[in-house]
Amino acid sequence: MKSFSERLQQAANDSNSILCVGLDIDAERIDPESPPSLDEMKSFTKSVIEATLDHTCAFKLNLAFFEMYGSDGFTWLEETLDFIGGRRFTIGDGKRGDIGNTAKKYATAMFDHFGFDAVTLSPYMGPDSLEPFLDRSDRGVFILCLTSNPGSREIQLSEASGVAVYRRVISMVKDLNENDNCGLVVGATKPAQMANIRLEAGKMPFLIPGIGAQGGDLEASVAVCSGDGIGLINVSRAVLYADNPTYAASEFKSRINSLMSSSKS
Amino acid sequence: MKSFSERLQQAANDSNSILCVGLDIDAERIDPESPPSLDEMKSFTKSVIEATLDHTCAFKLNLAFFEMYGSDGFTWLEETLDFIGGRRFTIGDGKRGDIGNTAKKYATAMFDHFGFDAVTLSPYMGPDSLEPFLDRSDRGVFILCLTSNPGSREIQLSEASGVAVYRRVISMVKDLNENDNCGLVVGATKPAQMANIRLEAGKMPFLIPGIGAQGGDLEASVAVCSGDGIGLINVSRAVLYADNPTYAASEFKSRINSLMSSSKS
Repeated sequence: MKSFSERLQQAANDSNSILCVGLDIDAERIDPESPPSLDEMKSFTKSVIEATLDHTCAFKLNLAFFEMYGSDGFTWLEETLDFIGGRRFTIGDGKRGDIGNTAKKYATAMFDHFGFDAVTLSPYMGPDSLEPFLDRSDRGVFILCLTSNPGSREIQLSEASGVAVYRRVISMVKDLNENDNCGLVVGATKPAQMANIRLEAGKMPFLIPGIGAQGGDLEASVAVCSGDGIGLINVSRAVLYADNPTYAASEFKSRINSLMSSSKS
Repeated sequence: MKSFSERLQQAANDSNSILCVGLDIDAERIDPESPPSLDEMKSFTKSVIEATLDHTCAFKLNLAFFEMYGSDGFTWLEETLDFIGGRRFTIGDGKRGDIGNTAKKYATAMFDHFGFDAVTLSPYMGPDSLEPFLDRSDRGVFILCLTSNPGSREIQLSEASGVAVYRRVISMVKDLNENDNCGLVVGATKPAQMANIRLEAGKMPFLIPGIGAQGGDLEASVAVCSGDGIGLINVSRAVLYADNPTYAASEFKSRINSLMSSSKS
């Protein structure tokens, strides 16, 4: 059986894309004057998926945007995953992290109930909070390493015995990667650290948010996905709320692929 | 208007209890041979709430146990909160943590949709991942500091420039506590560090999990909740699956109150 990392590489080859479209669908951004109903949001979600599918390797579903509607929001999430129907990789972006007993339940939620191919997790509680997910060798786990937001400096960039906390996370995750199903979340707004993270992480897949609205560095992001290790470059708002999401996704894909070619040559 | 910290103190006075019952309701533990249906779980939840209400200050609802059933699980969560109906403090234990834009949506989910009085959050992504919650001065936030699980040693207990990461979290949270609505999650399995965490944290409320099934130290836990700062001592499995949950909750309450009296005298 192929490992998660190999499956992801295959998916990128098949779609000729490492673009991931983030489905952070926000009623207030669709129309601030007259926010759409939940039914209209569902239609919007499907139209974005259809419009961008040909240009994406994966969809990342940010759970917060569904949870704010409670059980109705989770119905929307279930319907969205049904609609994607395995046509693309799906990442459940919930950044969960809890003691083993609870982590097992979250793994059941994400992998069995919703059926995500991969999830994002927080490393703060350590190995036993990650293991119930990692034990699922058919699924993938992207662990927060160095995130795209300004607050990342507070804990992640603090030095621990001369080693920044985010680097301690890399070595922890490498130790846990027995099933070749671990990846790291590395913010596109951190170009200064990216190349070193790739060096330390080896071939581990990256999930790179922060391109578009957050102003991340596309060139540096592509550079760490062009060598041995694969990466998914996530764009949410700059595709979702573009006048033409198909065009926006296709432009991102073209720019990424062109940067990959020049980076490899 | 009273601050969250003052409201929590008032709730503890009114109920003469700092016991928090954790509603981590697990079909496989209720009956491993023939797990109950979701409707039976709903009845079980209500019966535990009624059985323990007189002895508790708060209920902590662990979101994983609901999420594993997807939208049906969130319906169960909504019905459970309706059933509690403001009779006790409610804590939404989801340990969320994401960039500001997403954290706002999680705050809407937890405080507005579900209506929790307080939540648990992960500190890994830093201040801007916490602020949308902290801005809600009527609600409380317990931030993971030093957790009860074995894996906590990996990141939390690692030293950062001579200061362990969990201590860096304390100082970050103190700086953010302008609305007197911050608290810390401190595991009962960490008696060696508890007293120092109290010294560093001042009067900030603690949420202390790890008593019961996890084998935490009740005496040390009560000691850090008996002086200036309040704390909630959470028990989940040892109450939920007791032969008589009323008796189990009342015993925990009595032991806690007796330890508090001797600790104060």
